[in-house]
Amino acid sequence: MAGSSYGTIFRINTWGESHGKGIGVVVDGCPAGLPLNEEDIQRYLDRRKPGQSKFTTARREGDEVEILSGVFEGKTTGTPIALEVRNKDQRSKDYGDIMDIYRPGHADYTFDQKYGFRDYRGGGRSSGRETIGRVAGGAIAAKLLKSLGVRVYAYTLSVGPIAVSPDRMDMEERDKNRLYMPDAQAALEAEAYLEKLMAEKDSSGGVVECVIEGMPAGVGEPVFEKLDANLAKAVLSIGAVKGFEIGSGFRAASMRGSENNDAFCLEEETPDGGLAFHSRTVKKTNHSGGTLGGMSDGSPIVFRAAFKPTASIARPQQTVDRFGKEREIAVKGRHDPIIVPRAVVVVEAMAALTAADMLLLSMTSRLDRIQAFFGGGME
Amino acid sequence: MAGSSYGTIFRINTWGESHGKGIGVVVDGCPAGLPLNEEDIQRYLDRRKPGQSKFTTARREGDEVEILSGVFEGKTTGTPIALEVRNKDQRSKDYGDIMDIYRPGHADYTFDQKYGFRDYRGGGRSSGRETIGRVAGGAIAAKLLKSLGVRVYAYTLSVGPIAVSPDRMDMEERDKNRLYMPDAQAALEAEAYLEKLMAEKDSSGGVVECVIEGMPAGVGEPVFEKLDANLAKAVLSIGAVKGFEIGSGFRAASMRGSENNDAFCLEEETPDGGLAFHSRTVKKTNHSGGTLGGMSDGSPIVFRAAFKPTASIARPQQTVDRFGKEREIAVKGRHDPIIVPRAVVVVEAMAALTAADMLLLSMTSRLDRIQAFFGGGME
Amino acid sequence: MAGSSYGTIFRINTWGESHGKGIGVVVDGCPAGLPLNEEDIQRYLDRRKPGQSKFTTARREGDEVEILSGVFEGKTTGTPIALEVRNKDQRSKDYGDIMDIYRPGHADYTFDQKYGFRDYRGGGRSSGRETIGRVAGGAIAAKLLKSLGVRVYAYTLSVGPIAVSPDRMDMEERDKNRLYMPDAQAALEAEAYLEKLMAEKDSSGGVVECVIEGMPAGVGEPVFEKLDANLAKAVLSIGAVKGFEIGSGFRAASMRGSENNDAFCLEEETPDGGLAFHSRTVKKTNHSGGTLGGMSDGSPIVFRAAFKPTASIARPQQTVDRFGKEREIAVKGRHDPIIVPRAVVVVEAMAALTAADMLLLSMTSRLDRIQAFFGGGME
Amino acid sequence: MAGSSYGTIFRINTWGESHGKGIGVVVDGCPAGLPLNEEDIQRYLDRRKPGQSKFTTARREGDEVEILSGVFEGKTTGTPIALEVRNKDQRSKDYGDIMDIYRPGHADYTFDQKYGFRDYRGGGRSSGRETIGRVAGGAIAAKLLKSLGVRVYAYTLSVGPIAVSPDRMDMEERDKNRLYMPDAQAALEAEAYLEKLMAEKDSSGGVVECVIEGMPAGVGEPVFEKLDANLAKAVLSIGAVKGFEIGSGFRAASMRGSENNDAFCLEEETPDGGLAFHSRTVKKTNHSGGTLGGMSDGSPIVFRAAFKPTASIARPQQTVDRFGKEREIAVKGRHDPIIVPRAVVVVEAMAALTAADMLLLSMTSRLDRIQAFFGGGME
Repeated sequence: MAGSSYGTIFRINTWGESHGKGIGVVVDGCPAGLPLNEEDIQRYLDRRKPGQSKFTTARREGDEVEILSGVFEGKTTGTPIALEVRNKDQRSKDYGDIMDIYRPGHADYTFDQKYGFRDYRGGGRSSGRETIGRVAGGAIAAKLLKSLGVRVYAYTLSVGPIAVSPDRMDMEERDKNRLYMPDAQAALEAEAYLEKLMAEKDSSGGVVECVIEGMPAGVGEPVFEKLDANLAKAVLSIGAVKGFEIGSGFRAASMRGSENNDAFCLEEETPDGGLAFHSRTVKKTNHSGGTLGGMSDGSPIVFRAAFKPTASIARPQQTVDRFGKEREIAVKGRHDPIIVPRAVVVVEAMAALTAADMLLLSMTSRLDRIQAFFGGGME
Repeated sequence: MAGSSYGTIFRINTWGESHGKGIGVVVDGCPAGLPLNEEDIQRYLDRRKPGQSKFTTARREGDEVEILSGVFEGKTTGTPIALEVRNKDQRSKDYGDIMDIYRPGHADYTFDQKYGFRDYRGGGRSSGRETIGRVAGGAIAAKLLKSLGVRVYAYTLSVGPIAVSPDRMDMEERDKNRLYMPDAQAALEAEAYLEKLMAEKDSSGGVVECVIEGMPAGVGEPVFEKLDANLAKAVLSIGAVKGFEIGSGFRAASMRGSENNDAFCLEEETPDGGLAFHSRTVKKTNHSGGTLGGMSDGSPIVFRAAFKPTASIARPQQTVDRFGKEREIAVKGRHDPIIVPRAVVVVEAMAALTAADMLLLSMTSRLDRIQAFFGGGME
Repeated sequence: MAGSSYGTIFRINTWGESHGKGIGVVVDGCPAGLPLNEEDIQRYLDRRKPGQSKFTTARREGDEVEILSGVFEGKTTGTPIALEVRNKDQRSKDYGDIMDIYRPGHADYTFDQKYGFRDYRGGGRSSGRETIGRVAGGAIAAKLLKSLGVRVYAYTLSVGPIAVSPDRMDMEERDKNRLYMPDAQAALEAEAYLEKLMAEKDSSGGVVECVIEGMPAGVGEPVFEKLDANLAKAVLSIGAVKGFEIGSGFRAASMRGSENNDAFCLEEETPDGGLAFHSRTVKKTNHSGGTLGGMSDGSPIVFRAAFKPTASIARPQQTVDRFGKEREIAVKGRHDPIIVPRAVVVVEAMAALTAADMLLLSMTSRLDRIQAFFGGGME
Repeated sequence: MAGSSYGTIFRINTWGESHGKGIGVVVDGCPAGLPLNEEDIQRYLDRRKPGQSKFTTARREGDEVEILSGVFEGKTTGTPIALEVRNKDQRSKDYGDIMDIYRPGHADYTFDQKYGFRDYRGGGRSSGRETIGRVAGGAIAAKLLKSLGVRVYAYTLSVGPIAVSPDRMDMEERDKNRLYMPDAQAALEAEAYLEKLMAEKDSSGGVVECVIEGMPAGVGEPVFEKLDANLAKAVLSIGAVKGFEIGSGFRAASMRGSENNDAFCLEEETPDGGLAFHSRTVKKTNHSGGTLGGMSDGSPIVFRAAFKPTASIARPQQTVDRFGKEREIAVKGRHDPIIVPRAVVVVEAMAALTAADMLLLSMTSRLDRIQAFFGGGME
């Protein structure tokens, strides 16, 4: 089936394999009139670039994005925006055992079962490079959201057992260390942990936390198209994610109602607004993580994604090949001992795409606002 | 937007409010020829019925389902199956403060923000009764899956801090206690815990675990339509769910690659199969939870849903009313101290709906199988 | 597949068979705040009712619609609106040959090929009664459109070879004759023609014309989601429709550019408007039928649907049964000699559903209007 | 909204403007294992190329397609196939009045109304070059269909008042004349007619007819997703199309039931088949055009598209500019006096895309066939 598109009215369709001719995305449904240039997108792509630290693969990718359509005189036209990154390195090389052997923790086996064969070069479509299209599309969604007063940001919350301390959390710090952790001390400890793992030919998992600020209340739909349900899908669609939680998340399962409920109170000032009126009602706490009944409640939306450890490790592992023989494999080449730092921007991108789509979809929920929009008469 | 439908080719569209005339669902896209009667569906609905124990609300609902279309001579016809449960009790009564006050932890406020007003009777569309449509639709999906060799079941994994012990887990036990826990001892402890909470006018969260067995490998799509991503959305679309994890889940974030990777090995016997060939390749462990790269890997699919504590508690809570005044509320009436036992069948239903849709969608991934299906010639 | 829903954000999902328990529709995505009661819908249903003249079947159906959800205190709540018509007459009776024989011009054969069997009672899902759900949903779409200044109406343009004369066209006349023709003289001639056909145990086709007035310019999307493309699908989805044309239609194929192009000019006055500004630019003629490049151009949208003759005729016809034997059939019972008069409201309904969905979808095409809607900040 | 994608499980997403950097399409959902190379696609693109006769624009485009993803070792992998044609000529030039003036019969005005501004270079997204993506995607759909025994072809049926004669129709002739007419004599007359129009600075409309052969019975869905309804949308989504009809089409409206109904009879031989059994039941005539009740009936599917005359004509026309002033325009440059010959392959492409998607979707209609596919057990 057609499984490479995401979104309903603001939609992306990604394409491309790791070692094919290129990677790209078509962004369809972006409103007309948004100022946009390649630098807006390149900034996001550079954040997922490897070779930025010793914990990310050394190969210099230098992915450069090109806008092929949908922008005219510096602004989006409302028609599809095609973005493309040509792969620099497509030299045919010896893929050796990878061609035939199913790497544990990878999608080699499931691809073969689904499609009968696979593009084995660098993981093909299941490579981390697949996320280039998401990040490029997400950059546009983020810019659209910003123009509407909504901001999305994410960071590394934990690396293996090393977590950011709530007391030391400092968002300024995030971009200063190579692990995207908003806590200098935790970052140092995490680096030491990762060096130890690398020496042991092993890898680590971690958690990314993401915040969406400025979302007006009432975005998301009450039943299946809940805002949090769509965020969960968005996040689990990222390779290597094994869990999603919002607000108090799994901790809520062992809490009491009296602890977990957020009391409502009033803000001093009524915020300014357009047709979508902004309320003075706010919550004293945010265990809900910014949604109630699947709709944004006006508080920041806060969710977390659990990433498994990098599957490619240099230790020998037991496996099977596509001819039905048992084999041993030790994955060669340089691999990140953790994918979380490079995944932070991917989580941001998926959150922005989801938030932008649902914000636009929320415009049709009330007849009075629609009548004001169209200047329609009364019944 | 139209947010009350779920699925692509096997799709449900639910409708109904807690105290309206009824609740229902249209199941569209069910293949023709499946034997189906009302008892098949009623069995599932009875599992979410309240009044089955002292931990579920005493009100006898006695929801009786009626099949209105799509079944002829005992079999599905391939056309939409309309299912309906008429609400027994629609007497107008005094809703008192509920009309105007925003209950903490409920969707009252967000509904008002989104739509300008709401059906306040019993929570309206945000009531737990909304799940009747899901469960009725899920019963059909489960029966379809069973006819294809796939089985879905769920159970209560924990109640507040009391968890099922892996050593004592016994699925036979599940239906013997009122909490749907597959561990008699944990169930006893959990009952004691809940009684204490009720005495304190408080409530508890908990975790549901769900298993899908018999799914052939290769179901799910590699990028956005990953099987696990769709399960995450399905589960988060259930009211009160705050988290989803598959396989090792959040624990994977603190694990090492060498621990978390599942080695592949060979089974003794090749399973029988249709056009979708079943492989001898199996995994030694199941940290993946049954998916690799978003596609089923042939192992059981195992995931968990974290439920927050029941929001309705009898303790006084601080809040705001729709006129912008601060108020205090103590939610009256009987309310379950935990929703997990009744939610088990809802998780099962959403899993079955997702699995059925994605299984059908997987039929078009390989040309050779499509050619065999249609008896088409060669190029 | 799930083929019984129509629309993207304003969507209907119909269900029901001719002789099952009932027929219905779920309307999902209707904005909150639209005044709505059963009479609004019944008025539309009564227009497709048989037994209104000697040219429509005598059986009194008396379809009464019930609103089961989505309306509270006289207004839509934004949640799904379930509408239901219970079938009055479900007595089991002798269906005789119809069970086994494929009626020429009907879907009996294709249903059996697709599904392996079919509900043969009264045509099952392929009966004209299937349109009840469309008309009920269309009544709501039409009311929504009216509240936004858009009006949809249709009429019989021709009955067999007898066409309405443009010189005599008078919309007041439409509801005065039993054929819904806006031309008293043509109606008389058409009645005589139909009486002759009935005497000859034969039937007639005809054309319905439909007009959408008040649509602001710019509704519809430039490529696949053209307004006219969606209208074409909507109209061809009605049973017995064999053709669709907009504006000059098939006549355009033999015209010259200099004849068919519509010149632009200026209106005297700028119309009032909301955020969606209304322009002074108008067309001198309307060969385009109200769309240019798939988007509404501000002129009335005018299209036509060609209906084939009623397939059920009392004359003997050659056919085959489901056991693979050649047979002869003369369809018994009373059947309309033409379906066009009762189809007029079905065309209106499908047009209203399409127009409402695309009007709502058009709200997200321009960033400046979205910013005004949300009161968003500037970049 | 996202309006540049078409299809449900076999889906294309097109992008690109006439004078932007390029034009392209992402084909998502093509089954794995289809042999495919650039020549397969180029052959289709060459058929829509201008400069092939004096009736198509002289400018040599030389569009060369590049496959960027989704094909490995000569076969489709099941992942998205990105196809791209770089625009050769993007020199900035003087667009003169076109920038500001609304050309009659074009989408200039509606684009400005919808989006606030437009890429005016060569018509931007509303240019005929937009169809490159459709044709490239359609080439793949056609190859997929061919591998399943289904064939799609189209031809020019009429040019202005000059129509192909049924008696002289000879498909061999189609590719021998520059108008794609399967009738040498009609082609000569049509050429003379067009030369006269060109001398008069005018243009002509015409009709394209398309045939789909080999479709098994039962493809298409009974209600909204009728095969003919989707073909109608597909065809009306092509710029300049003003009408669609299938089988007897508009002529059916003036026919009698006894003329229009197709009698069923039996074929001598039972055709071979896969799981989708092929029946011996056939029709004596094909007024239905190959569908009954929205599902294929086993006969060839035959439909027609009416194209309006080329809107760009050199004669002076009255219009308005975007500043709200009345103006006169005579469209400069060379323009085809008729677009029909180049549109033939576009109709074929849209038909192939629709047929491929609906054929794949039809695989899930019967449980017995699904059980055979998966080798599933019985209930």
